[in-house]
Amino acid sequence: MANKNINSVEEVKNKQVIFRDYVTGPPKESDFYITTSTIKLQIPPGSDAILVKNLFLSADPTLQFRMRTVQHQHLAGYQYTPGSPINGFGVAKVVDSGDPNFSVGDLIWGTTGWEEYSLIQQPQQLFKIQHTDVPLSFYTGILGMAGITAYALVYEIFTPRKGDRIFVTAASGAVGQLIGQYCKLMGCYVVGSAGNQEKVDLLKNKLGFDHAFNYKQEHDFDVALKRYFPEGIDIYYEQVGGKMLDAVLGNMKVHGCVASCGMISQYNIAEPETLKNVMQIVVRRLTMKGFTHRDHHHLYPKLLDTVLPYIREKKVVYVEDIVEGLENGPAAFVGLFSGRNFGKQVAAVAHE
Amino acid sequence: MANKNINSVEEVKNKQVIFRDYVTGPPKESDFYITTSTIKLQIPPGSDAILVKNLFLSADPTLQFRMRTVQHQHLAGYQYTPGSPINGFGVAKVVDSGDPNFSVGDLIWGTTGWEEYSLIQQPQQLFKIQHTDVPLSFYTGILGMAGITAYALVYEIFTPRKGDRIFVTAASGAVGQLIGQYCKLMGCYVVGSAGNQEKVDLLKNKLGFDHAFNYKQEHDFDVALKRYFPEGIDIYYEQVGGKMLDAVLGNMKVHGCVASCGMISQYNIAEPETLKNVMQIVVRRLTMKGFTHRDHHHLYPKLLDTVLPYIREKKVVYVEDIVEGLENGPAAFVGLFSGRNFGKQVAAVAHE
Repeated sequence: MANKNINSVEEVKNKQVIFRDYVTGPPKESDFYITTSTIKLQIPPGSDAILVKNLFLSADPTLQFRMRTVQHQHLAGYQYTPGSPINGFGVAKVVDSGDPNFSVGDLIWGTTGWEEYSLIQQPQQLFKIQHTDVPLSFYTGILGMAGITAYALVYEIFTPRKGDRIFVTAASGAVGQLIGQYCKLMGCYVVGSAGNQEKVDLLKNKLGFDHAFNYKQEHDFDVALKRYFPEGIDIYYEQVGGKMLDAVLGNMKVHGCVASCGMISQYNIAEPETLKNVMQIVVRRLTMKGFTHRDHHHLYPKLLDTVLPYIREKKVVYVEDIVEGLENGPAAFVGLFSGRNFGKQVAAVAHE
Repeated sequence: MANKNINSVEEVKNKQVIFRDYVTGPPKESDFYITTSTIKLQIPPGSDAILVKNLFLSADPTLQFRMRTVQHQHLAGYQYTPGSPINGFGVAKVVDSGDPNFSVGDLIWGTTGWEEYSLIQQPQQLFKIQHTDVPLSFYTGILGMAGITAYALVYEIFTPRKGDRIFVTAASGAVGQLIGQYCKLMGCYVVGSAGNQEKVDLLKNKLGFDHAFNYKQEHDFDVALKRYFPEGIDIYYEQVGGKMLDAVLGNMKVHGCVASCGMISQYNIAEPETLKNVMQIVVRRLTMKGFTHRDHHHLYPKLLDTVLPYIREKKVVYVEDIVEGLENGPAAFVGLFSGRNFGKQVAAVAHE
């Protein structure tokens, strides 16, 4: 197809979510605008890129780092370009390919644009989707980046023993709901926190957590944690940071572990909340590890071997919050920071 | 000897360092007083205790935790008893024994009293000293608790690779001087901080550190660290906590490690200093471990195999600050908190 006369190729409209400019505070819907350009459904002659039709886009809190001027040198190069479409993880179908590893019609997941069609210059970074008996949107979550995060944390980084007492924050979110269910499958006692009663009910009634609580209704996190963990916490899977992390450090068991894959409470405040219980890391001989999925993509085949059967046998459920339409993507993304999403936040661009 | 008529046994004077009462602030000399009691140089009839003559006592910062009412539940049971002598690690000679594993004349190290003679009820916790071709006082330091700490940190917990860039705080102290020298033997780049110029000179000129600086003369720890670690720190062996730890977290390499075996800057302040860089643990995917020697006593035979040759071949030097006389012990201990000691602080009670 790459050799076809370019003039004969269909040119279609391409709706896009454009990044307006760098921000300092929390993301707002007005940081983006929707535009419609046109695109030829063909890769440039001689290119080894692939052209995809986007199906599902993953709304992830970490995208907001890319909306800022560089704060952390380790994030340099990830910044969005004002006036261009944003990108992130998503599921897409190959429309044209200059890479022999990808054929027209293949389904992939990986970094793609927030637009209807994207030209992906480095397709070697993509994962090809081989199993389509599960919802395709799952490749933005349980079988995508959030899935790698949860799988690596529980099965590789800090693997609990039966009976361990586990605490999960952001427990109904993309990663938390998986961590909690995996730990339950391992025979642990699992408590989750979330930001409203509906999420708490989900954790207790649908996801099998032993207990759950609404952190917004707790005046003193230390008191809340002592209620559910009178003997202390073995493993804390951390996603929020700040005051909650500080309270957890004061409620860990000796030799306990803290795995931190995010600190969403700290992302959008001018000054990070300060912690006073850091000395408990010494007193209680804790191990704390920071974590990103990027270091663990090699685990993906093992993840599929473990998690696909869990999905098919309904041992694990995955709760998604799918908004329809690319144009609703920015609101869905911004909603993450106020906890508006109910489960993994996805934007559906197209269904096939 | 245990069956000998108790009336015939020599009764001697026993000078003791008595703990006055629980404190809230930093330890002061007036928290102790010296008294002289008498003691019969014999264990009670039927006892399996041992009676020792104390030679060298180890002045350790952590003793101060035992001068307080319980703050951390994990330290419960370790508190000193007002009106009784304090205890800590020391080197002693067995004078009488009800334990078949210990004979009169044996040299031991382990927990003993700050007094001339001590009755040790649980001698099974003691280490018997087998190698006396090195200074006996070394068993309060390089071959004692500080030695286990340094050995386990460098050879077991976070073992550096050749060329790693290492930062050590309290670098001329009991543990820091060993960590730095062990890392140099492994081919690392090692920088230490200390609290005066004399200590800085010691690190650079006698202990082989690549660089050293006086933290009291640095207005901005971040600037100081960037001077010595423009490419970041691979491993931070942490003993001070607070502002220095916070600055280090902002100067670690991705995947760097922080081993914390103490946070002396935080021990005696009403409210712990707060940290604002904790999120760097996630951003840089750091591993931070709290540590106590107590979890690593099983390594002691390996330590002797490694470190005794280092001492004998003068590959490692060990700097001690030995005050003569039990009565000078409290001042030596209190001096730790203002950095008055030059090297490992020891109090010599007797030399044989």
